[in-house]
Amino acid sequence: MDARRRTFLKTGLALLGGASVAGAEAAEPPETPPWMTSPGAGMSEYGGPAKYEGRVKRTAITSRPGTTGSGVSRTPLEALDGTITPSGLHFERHHSGVPDIDPARHRLLVHGLVRRPLLFTVEALLRYPRVSRIHFLECAGNSAAMYNPTPPTLTAGQTHGLVSGSEWTGVPLRVLLEEAGADPKAGWLLAEGADAAAMSRSVPMAKAMDDALLALFQNGERLRPENGYPVRLFLPGYEGNMSVKWLRRIKVTATPTMTKDETSRYTDLQADGKALMFTYPMEVKSLITRPSPGVGLSGPGLYEISGLAWSGRGAVARVDVSTDGGRTWGAAALGAPVLPRSLTRFRMPWKWDGRPAVLKSRAADETGALQPERDRFIAEHGANAIFHYHAIHAWAVQASGEVTHVYA
Amino acid sequence: MDARRRTFLKTGLALLGGASVAGAEAAEPPETPPWMTSPGAGMSEYGGPAKYEGRVKRTAITSRPGTTGSGVSRTPLEALDGTITPSGLHFERHHSGVPDIDPARHRLLVHGLVRRPLLFTVEALLRYPRVSRIHFLECAGNSAAMYNPTPPTLTAGQTHGLVSGSEWTGVPLRVLLEEAGADPKAGWLLAEGADAAAMSRSVPMAKAMDDALLALFQNGERLRPENGYPVRLFLPGYEGNMSVKWLRRIKVTATPTMTKDETSRYTDLQADGKALMFTYPMEVKSLITRPSPGVGLSGPGLYEISGLAWSGRGAVARVDVSTDGGRTWGAAALGAPVLPRSLTRFRMPWKWDGRPAVLKSRAADETGALQPERDRFIAEHGANAIFHYHAIHAWAVQASGEVTHVYA
Repeated sequence: MDARRRTFLKTGLALLGGASVAGAEAAEPPETPPWMTSPGAGMSEYGGPAKYEGRVKRTAITSRPGTTGSGVSRTPLEALDGTITPSGLHFERHHSGVPDIDPARHRLLVHGLVRRPLLFTVEALLRYPRVSRIHFLECAGNSAAMYNPTPPTLTAGQTHGLVSGSEWTGVPLRVLLEEAGADPKAGWLLAEGADAAAMSRSVPMAKAMDDALLALFQNGERLRPENGYPVRLFLPGYEGNMSVKWLRRIKVTATPTMTKDETSRYTDLQADGKALMFTYPMEVKSLITRPSPGVGLSGPGLYEISGLAWSGRGAVARVDVSTDGGRTWGAAALGAPVLPRSLTRFRMPWKWDGRPAVLKSRAADETGALQPERDRFIAEHGANAIFHYHAIHAWAVQASGEVTHVYA
Repeated sequence: MDARRRTFLKTGLALLGGASVAGAEAAEPPETPPWMTSPGAGMSEYGGPAKYEGRVKRTAITSRPGTTGSGVSRTPLEALDGTITPSGLHFERHHSGVPDIDPARHRLLVHGLVRRPLLFTVEALLRYPRVSRIHFLECAGNSAAMYNPTPPTLTAGQTHGLVSGSEWTGVPLRVLLEEAGADPKAGWLLAEGADAAAMSRSVPMAKAMDDALLALFQNGERLRPENGYPVRLFLPGYEGNMSVKWLRRIKVTATPTMTKDETSRYTDLQADGKALMFTYPMEVKSLITRPSPGVGLSGPGLYEISGLAWSGRGAVARVDVSTDGGRTWGAAALGAPVLPRSLTRFRMPWKWDGRPAVLKSRAADETGALQPERDRFIAEHGANAIFHYHAIHAWAVQASGEVTHVYA
């Protein structure tokens, strides 16, 4: 147990002060429950969630009019804890649905400014050396509803659930680029997916040669179809759409290709009328998931304020929490290990006195970048950017214990 | 990217030497596949594996004669990568099946040598401060087939798949023990499950006050039924059965309770005729999962040797790999972060010359404990212990590329 955790627990216990938090005094052992009176179910080949947790599912599923697969589903952040998202609840963003790809027939082409173009079967890719790393993936459009002039009356996941965390395992992209003999002067590459939209993005060669992966496994097992089976690009910290799913083509190029997906989409219209292109890293961000709408308080007493922080530029350095709308702040405990470009769980014990309160969290990363207040963020970027929203979020706790979203 | 990983990649690329590993030279881009010609499937509420991965499931499911739920299922280690096991593939060991527990009716009693006995609902437990940690869980009986006089002709998972890795989130047990006012002189506690076997074990108070958790979440979501829903004990590094599932009772005691599960079972008969009791920590261990039976080689060339290492006593310090049956050894790269009492992925590039070879891995942990050769382990412990097998494992690679199990 690390020192930080000990301190945290000590604080929690000090707040507790010997008083009962939630346990009821018990005179008698409980009666034998019915499920102890006969043998239970047998083993199974592939398990699923408890039937009592059926309400925990991807949320706010929406698609463009006239389509069923051009849209999103969101991770129910308020129902989860820790930093790993079960793959079944990882958010989705598809541009033309989830293709049903036979891995025996899938091919990946590496071509363009290379000494020799190479074509890979999935079986061939599976033969290469791999690395495993825990990283978040966040859609550029996550939290877009926060550009609204009034606070969305949604859950944490419905508003911010286009972010998830996984252990990704794959082949370093630079291994294949070096095998193909990529021209050292080529500054870019094009990555194209095998979906019906042929979703395509330009990737700086520096990123490709640094930490880019051809991901084959997610959370231990082969990729799920909605996350790019049989192989996807994975660019740690970059906006999600850059990590092109169902990857079929890497073309080494001198300049960006200016695909439809980086000209007509995924540009960020600013307050001054200019649009930013190629805004790759997701900015430092945090969110309280507990308490939050639907995860309220049941009377005064000790609670835990808990949430997630992340930054596409490196490791989270610090998360501060306020229970008075930002007048005063205290440092939250960060769950170990704090990994670069990964979800980091923060926690802080809180003794609620039963009066209305406004909860906020504010993250800083190792580059010194600080999550801004919403007012300042909107003043700088305007309300039309759609993408890369990362300002401080506020939840109001009512005297009833109910939690609502406020701009504060 | 850390220094160790860079070194590893450099080694891999040096071995590669500019030669093609697996990519075929390509003259033409591949034809447009059928799945790019029409929109794919829509978003879903809870995803599952690709249908093409249907063979990846829990393996070697066995139960005692006359029962369906007193037995095990094993993680298919050879089909996975990374260090997180998807919860659906986490191994199972039940003593009387999986109880169907309604969380609204489940209770946890903390009693015995305490100032005031407390009874908790699941809702009450969910209100407490939590911590999240990545740990392995290994059944005491994992690898029991290795006590056989001849090498089992099974896959890696069928032999060693009673070990899995997860992120566990829960309430530190000591928070509840302190709230109940456990007698500081009480040295033990009894943990009892709500299955029909009322599976029960004695736990040293020192462990309970150190890093024991009342686990509520596994890999981000609430526990799966087969892993103790709605709440289980979790004792990092200890033999799996101690982490009592479906936890209904914690009784603080002066001495061990000597339950059926720690007298008639889970004692380790040694070569000298004595049986060891209360052998809690799982010893330092490692296993090559790739190549392994069913995951063979397709002709000479560059491959990756990869596997898992772990120790119940702390962090893995080092894994050595041999390709000549243990005559010479080289240090494998360890995937970051290396966490205490967690699965650690090791990797080493290997240029196979096409001749028969015997692969071994050997782990050491931060306490200095070293995984022993099988001969020495059997000489010391005999062949009847059933539990706590952790010797060095050998795979023979045939000239055909096929991999078989050998004692070597």
